[in-house]
Amino acid sequence: MTAPWDEFGLISACFRPLSVAEPGAFSLTDDAAVLTPTPGTDWVVTADALVAGVHFFPDDPPASIAKKALRVNLSDIAAMGAKPRCVFLTCAFPNALDKHWINLFSEGLGQDLQEYGIALAGGDVVATPGPLTLSVTAMGEVPSGRCLRRNGVKDGDVIVVTGSIGDAALGLDMQRHVAPEALDGQDRAYLLERYRHPLPRLQAGAILLQTAHAAMDISDGLLADVRHMAEASKVDILLDARRVPLSGAARRWLDVMPSAQERVLAGGDDYELAFACGVEDFAALSAEIGAAGVQVTAIGRAEAGEGRVYRYESGRRQLVAVSGGHRHGGEANGSGA
Amino acid sequence: MTAPWDEFGLISACFRPLSVAEPGAFSLTDDAAVLTPTPGTDWVVTADALVAGVHFFPDDPPASIAKKALRVNLSDIAAMGAKPRCVFLTCAFPNALDKHWINLFSEGLGQDLQEYGIALAGGDVVATPGPLTLSVTAMGEVPSGRCLRRNGVKDGDVIVVTGSIGDAALGLDMQRHVAPEALDGQDRAYLLERYRHPLPRLQAGAILLQTAHAAMDISDGLLADVRHMAEASKVDILLDARRVPLSGAARRWLDVMPSAQERVLAGGDDYELAFACGVEDFAALSAEIGAAGVQVTAIGRAEAGEGRVYRYESGRRQLVAVSGGHRHGGEANGSGA
Repeated sequence: MTAPWDEFGLISACFRPLSVAEPGAFSLTDDAAVLTPTPGTDWVVTADALVAGVHFFPDDPPASIAKKALRVNLSDIAAMGAKPRCVFLTCAFPNALDKHWINLFSEGLGQDLQEYGIALAGGDVVATPGPLTLSVTAMGEVPSGRCLRRNGVKDGDVIVVTGSIGDAALGLDMQRHVAPEALDGQDRAYLLERYRHPLPRLQAGAILLQTAHAAMDISDGLLADVRHMAEASKVDILLDARRVPLSGAARRWLDVMPSAQERVLAGGDDYELAFACGVEDFAALSAEIGAAGVQVTAIGRAEAGEGRVYRYESGRRQLVAVSGGHRHGGEANGSGA
Repeated sequence: MTAPWDEFGLISACFRPLSVAEPGAFSLTDDAAVLTPTPGTDWVVTADALVAGVHFFPDDPPASIAKKALRVNLSDIAAMGAKPRCVFLTCAFPNALDKHWINLFSEGLGQDLQEYGIALAGGDVVATPGPLTLSVTAMGEVPSGRCLRRNGVKDGDVIVVTGSIGDAALGLDMQRHVAPEALDGQDRAYLLERYRHPLPRLQAGAILLQTAHAAMDISDGLLADVRHMAEASKVDILLDARRVPLSGAARRWLDVMPSAQERVLAGGDDYELAFACGVEDFAALSAEIGAAGVQVTAIGRAEAGEGRVYRYESGRRQLVAVSGGHRHGGEANGSGA
């Protein structure tokens, strides 16, 4: 197997420049990075793998692939209320990828690292006879003992989501050519953007640290992830599906194809935050997160229970089956934590 | 694409039990792990990817594959003089792998985590249409500001290696059926073991912290890695190839196939440590590492220079060409840092 590049050359040309912001990365020239913790903080660490044809389309733009790999990890960092500091990236590159492709990939990664104020602190480049496979480990810092978990939802809490739900799943469907014909170019571009470039809600996560009781990021689909939260917290959660916030593009899609409502609720890849807070704290959190440019919407409430999720519609409760929400393994869908 | 397992089921059955030693792993149920640093330490972090057919044979025992993926990373932790604490593992499993295979894999991983006193703190499981692809991020701790680097070699230093060199490369050749016929079963078993199960030199690394000037692990081949050390330290290094320590099995191989000498020096996958220390410190370091059960052998010395490596043979110096040492991308060879 011969690739048109070698590991050391690639690291030096494409990845070393992305490490300069972290002196402990030693310009990617040593066996490991050495990171001095900021006093008074804990490390928050998460790792996700992405495979071409499973989590993204092989012909997606290289810069988008890099950004998505980074952002799905930053979304986990956001969900814990942490501030990201650095990432480690391992790339299994197919031999067929040329240096130009890899250049575009590393440029996209570099743009995002700068955008989020973090550095590439280490990793590995190997050749693979299979599809492009990326693994990102992201590290962030949170004040000691203060991280947000998903298991803290309390009886009576408001259940809230950031941003809009379902855009990425519809963007993926569009890539699979199942969009309504009536959908205009602007809506298509918006949904594709939402699928390709999730927006990790780091500012919102940091604000939630103050008073929220629980948080997680929505990667497996709203219904599945809210159930994860209910199970971990040993409460029941009642959702009002009509309140789930939709973008204009998603609303226009549902207007002509109402069946897509289930796709919105279960589709995954949103990378928005779901969180729980006391009723008394909702207004202040909502205002502060809104001031940071992120919409928040109350979509339900928690009550004493055993980890079930109910949809509350037309005055009736309907139990959400455990199979609601996607599982990994389909073509080009989301990745979990 | 349908795999005979699902992500959540696998994580729960196979991987969750491996996380119990690290409370901050939250039993792998949250978005990320939260790790509280030990006061007075820095984190040492490294990541390596391994691909079936490139870094190991697809039909290697699943437990061996897991152990190798872990140990090549712990070898980097050892090279920095750090104590390992936890690892993050992402697995892209081919759909054809059944649960039994994955059980054996996670059991092997669990044995090793216990052996090295560390926990699985997080990761990801995804399906791939390609070969099994693993990525491990290992985290260790080292007293603040004290880590060993590869760039500290000084003029006059002794260049030393742990263990024996070349066993893994010969073990790989044996897998490729190029071993001398005369090699007996015991030697074959030993070399295969050395290829499959590297021994990260963690105790040696911790001892080296005291007085060694530089260290790195040998993954790309002795010649290439000593050159990396010479380049990083801006010294020349003179190696006496006759002093490079060989196992009995390797010696018997070379007796009947002397041409394999170059393979021993350049082959890679040794995961021994190369280090540099002052002449005055060699005896004490050697005794202390020896007492920990690891042989050390002086194989050369450093002198003022510009990052070149010379082999010193029959009273003459011979420059080691930059192409000496393997590069990644061949079939089932080593992985770098």
